[in-house]
Amino acid sequence: MASSTRSSKRQKTGAEMASETGDSLPYKLIYWPSIPGRGEHIRLAFEATGTPYIDVANQTDAGVNAVMAQISDKNIGDDNNPPPLAPPILQHGDDILLSQTPNILAYLGPKLGLVSDVTADSVGLYHVNALTLTALDGLSNEPHDVHHPIASSAYYEEQKEEALKKAADYRAVRLPKFLGYFERVLSGPASGGGEWLYGGKLTYADLVLFQTVDGVSYAFPKRVGKLKSSGKYDKVFALYERVKALDKVKSYLESDRRLKYSLGIYRHYPELDAED
Amino acid sequence: MASSTRSSKRQKTGAEMASETGDSLPYKLIYWPSIPGRGEHIRLAFEATGTPYIDVANQTDAGVNAVMAQISDKNIGDDNNPPPLAPPILQHGDDILLSQTPNILAYLGPKLGLVSDVTADSVGLYHVNALTLTALDGLSNEPHDVHHPIASSAYYEEQKEEALKKAADYRAVRLPKFLGYFERVLSGPASGGGEWLYGGKLTYADLVLFQTVDGVSYAFPKRVGKLKSSGKYDKVFALYERVKALDKVKSYLESDRRLKYSLGIYRHYPELDAED
Repeated sequence: MASSTRSSKRQKTGAEMASETGDSLPYKLIYWPSIPGRGEHIRLAFEATGTPYIDVANQTDAGVNAVMAQISDKNIGDDNNPPPLAPPILQHGDDILLSQTPNILAYLGPKLGLVSDVTADSVGLYHVNALTLTALDGLSNEPHDVHHPIASSAYYEEQKEEALKKAADYRAVRLPKFLGYFERVLSGPASGGGEWLYGGKLTYADLVLFQTVDGVSYAFPKRVGKLKSSGKYDKVFALYERVKALDKVKSYLESDRRLKYSLGIYRHYPELDAED
Repeated sequence: MASSTRSSKRQKTGAEMASETGDSLPYKLIYWPSIPGRGEHIRLAFEATGTPYIDVANQTDAGVNAVMAQISDKNIGDDNNPPPLAPPILQHGDDILLSQTPNILAYLGPKLGLVSDVTADSVGLYHVNALTLTALDGLSNEPHDVHHPIASSAYYEEQKEEALKKAADYRAVRLPKFLGYFERVLSGPASGGGEWLYGGKLTYADLVLFQTVDGVSYAFPKRVGKLKSSGKYDKVFALYERVKALDKVKSYLESDRRLKYSLGIYRHYPELDAED
């Protein structure tokens, strides 16, 4: 990967760099093909804002090799970029490579207009980042661990007994805790009216909450149905519907770019779901 | 909490705000008393840079109530701040409250000089953020889940059988994976020489790696000892010693402000440790 471009920019000011590394450089998402997974949060940020991007493993001949080369034990990165541990990886232009889902979103947020304007609210992007980290903790990482409580490298069937126990705790304790938390965020004044999580406008935290609620609804349809009908989380489910109805999001969800859930983070094993 | 100060600042420019919300405002850490926990990453950022801060629950009469009030189900935040789900919480001045460990560090990094200068390297802070998120994933969150694989709300003794299985996987697969990853980062050119994780200078990612390696060394002394003596992770352990020997860090570690591990994220249960 050519590194001369950015190295030469290191002598320039931040403002000069910001204009040079702006939207004119192409965005590429490097993520496992065929599953939504953690890459879906990045896809939604691009799709909701109408930002062109290339989903490398799904849309180019490189396929899964693009991912494998990045996460290889032999990859030590380049002059500008440490190696990534895992995808999703964002490539911006030729010489910027970033990993970790919430980190990629923090980088994209200001560029795609998915956080408050930093000149008017310099702290807003940190609130959006915290809300995103919390949604990913409780509504993405934990649901993954429900079907893989012992070892992520082993099959579900090898840890099914433990998964049944963890699923019971997730349904009874953790899922209501996180939905209740976001209901509380939407009830608070910093949400700016309760339609969006922060500041009265769409941010990438809303997209993440949409995607994680969509995922747990797929994995635990009975339990989420029961929680929804309780009426205790009406603001959360209204936000979910509000994001889903955005023109660009709606078009995306109806396109073949929206991949189906299968054996990724969110899995539907009927034995792990129940109303209670 | 008074919210008028920051609300009025929303009309000002980012530069004006940055200067007004600079280091002159006091920093307060709101975290559980008596344990290092996730609050330790914030303490280390302050201590390593000689930045004054108040550790509210340990150093003021408010004690644990300062934490409980923030995470109460009744707290809906204020005009500027969504409520936090959990500590650590950073209070900066009167009207900024931020949660989530890596988010607080991302906020503090530029203010405390613990990331590259943004005018010279506008992407560096995202690399530091990614490295931090990865260390917290594999060397903090996963070690916690080793002793609580089924339910964080239940006692270790209630999930000891499953913990024994998860510990075996953590020791054999996950711990070497993450140490190997950071060895690879330190072997790459973006580290700037292999003494620090990114850009040839101390960043908060180094402090986080120090603390997480310290934690797993406490929890799994036999296993970490064996991995250390393998010679495969020499750069990681050298970085650990390098951070530990920094004047301000050394003074802190020898002070009574450095709390002892007990029943927090890192726990030493001899039955969960082994050389293999």
